[in-house]
Amino acid sequence: MPELRQDPSTHEWVIIATERARRPDEFRKPVASRADSHSDAGCVFCPGNEHRTPQEVFSLRAKGKSDEPGWAIRVIPNKFPALQADATALHNEPDVFFHKMGGFGIHEVIIETPRHDRVMAHMTETELVQVMWVYRERYRKLRTDPRVKLILIFKDHGASAGTSISHPHAQLVATPVIPLYVRKKYEVAIEHFDSTGRCIYCDIVREEKKAGERIVLETDRFLVFHPFASRSPFETWIAPKRHNSCFGSCADEELADLAYVLKNVLGALYVQLDNPDFNFVIHTAPVEDEAKPYYLWHLQILPRLTTPAGFEIGTGVFINTVVPEESARFMREALGQSVTAARH
Amino acid sequence: MPELRQDPSTHEWVIIATERARRPDEFRKPVASRADSHSDAGCVFCPGNEHRTPQEVFSLRAKGKSDEPGWAIRVIPNKFPALQADATALHNEPDVFFHKMGGFGIHEVIIETPRHDRVMAHMTETELVQVMWVYRERYRKLRTDPRVKLILIFKDHGASAGTSISHPHAQLVATPVIPLYVRKKYEVAIEHFDSTGRCIYCDIVREEKKAGERIVLETDRFLVFHPFASRSPFETWIAPKRHNSCFGSCADEELADLAYVLKNVLGALYVQLDNPDFNFVIHTAPVEDEAKPYYLWHLQILPRLTTPAGFEIGTGVFINTVVPEESARFMREALGQSVTAARH
Repeated sequence: MPELRQDPSTHEWVIIATERARRPDEFRKPVASRADSHSDAGCVFCPGNEHRTPQEVFSLRAKGKSDEPGWAIRVIPNKFPALQADATALHNEPDVFFHKMGGFGIHEVIIETPRHDRVMAHMTETELVQVMWVYRERYRKLRTDPRVKLILIFKDHGASAGTSISHPHAQLVATPVIPLYVRKKYEVAIEHFDSTGRCIYCDIVREEKKAGERIVLETDRFLVFHPFASRSPFETWIAPKRHNSCFGSCADEELADLAYVLKNVLGALYVQLDNPDFNFVIHTAPVEDEAKPYYLWHLQILPRLTTPAGFEIGTGVFINTVVPEESARFMREALGQSVTAARH
Repeated sequence: MPELRQDPSTHEWVIIATERARRPDEFRKPVASRADSHSDAGCVFCPGNEHRTPQEVFSLRAKGKSDEPGWAIRVIPNKFPALQADATALHNEPDVFFHKMGGFGIHEVIIETPRHDRVMAHMTETELVQVMWVYRERYRKLRTDPRVKLILIFKDHGASAGTSISHPHAQLVATPVIPLYVRKKYEVAIEHFDSTGRCIYCDIVREEKKAGERIVLETDRFLVFHPFASRSPFETWIAPKRHNSCFGSCADEELADLAYVLKNVLGALYVQLDNPDFNFVIHTAPVEDEAKPYYLWHLQILPRLTTPAGFEIGTGVFINTVVPEESARFMREALGQSVTAARH
């Protein structure tokens, strides 16, 4: 069973993922890849290999039965889950020094296309709308489990972004605790709301729009920008203009606009940086705070262009070697956008 | 000038390192390495190439003049500093939305040996004592600057740990702010002290010793263990048994014992994991809190064996695929240690 353990010095939780467990000597170089179990005789995410994955929990399909070809998007439980639905969520007794709890959670893989080589940057808008729709659908399904505190949807693209399966897919993890990192962001947001009556993220969107020079793309419903304090080169935020703390509450027309934005932004990154490895993460409020006035869901893209090292580990402060005003301009060049809102 | 910028949504600082700045299009694959400027015609850290680095600020040498061969350990300003001594430390005016400040700081490189291939795991105890002594010496020197708030000493070993210069070296960064990450750790430590009158880190050392099964090595003055909530495989803490929040206040006999411990632990990692890439960081109290009863300096080693991905980025929660009790046993096998204190 996976286990959640708490660091007594920071109160942060760590997942000891026993289902993925490796013997210590497996870490001798060359590092064995998690993909080993997937790489024999073809990709397990490709049509025809459905029997080699756990049974699907959802699919978008024109034909065929469950776990057969014919799907456009397929959702399966992760074969090596970080957290498991049948683990207990109970905390330990209170009198022990080291706190741990059963690693309850849900860990799904969203296979975004039957086509092995169809990276998201090359999908059509129609395909992307479907992918966004499935993200929202799974969010809405899993939020009904009363044990679920937070639902994180993310995508790892490329080996340096932590994935070894190149077939396009995203992951969804529902956690039984609200991570400290998320709590801390909330504290800042609540404090700002208590002082000003406004959402800090909506304020950021407004101020980034006013500044203008870090804008990458603007549509009716979204502002895309390289944030003022970008932690790494080409860090990109896609933020809705309408206040809404919960990704699951996106309207259909927002999903459609998001598909347009993603196609353009990922397409420009693909061209300008030659298909970089990246992670993207959909930041959304904890389930119990879905309707709160102080948080704004947003999608964050982090290309993996640099390596955090000892300084970042020791301080949590990132060193960014690119000025975000310059990287945003470089992206606008690819997108053919001018900054009409710039007021410098 | 480097610039510190604050993320309005987290209050975390980011360093925009203009001295290391790269044009956005430099990130097109293949990623150009920071080592480019060092790799032509030999290593700039090797004896004979002193003129190719900034002038040394300190050296331990038996013969020769400054910036000539003859040194055993040489300390130079970083040629591409993240922070700069001549930048202003003033905060911005209070009425702007996006906060920034001049990137004041000190960024030094400690070249630990004249021998290009002498990795720390292979240094003699005598050499290591000298290296530790220089670490402490530079700490003591830089703490006298009233603008310095925190001094971080760290080492990046290997490309995946973020360095591209293989010649053994450590770095020292003195920052003009106390990073939020450090503040948060302090809040936990202060709360624990206020509740119990004890240092949380000393409690951890005591409890790890009591549990026993995660101990890697114990000496008169240090306990080495893989912590209960290890964030990544083979995360290793080297913690002093004497309460002392400040690395700069280490006694000579502690430095000697630390050299012994490092030699053994890095040696065992070298053997057991075949010279893994790693970072190590010396966590020490901010300068103004050097004598506080609630913090314990410690050295943390993080081998780079796995890649944090979208889940870690989105939640701050790490997924560890190795059980620390097992990795600690694997290290003890190399060190020939038994766990006499285990009481399970």
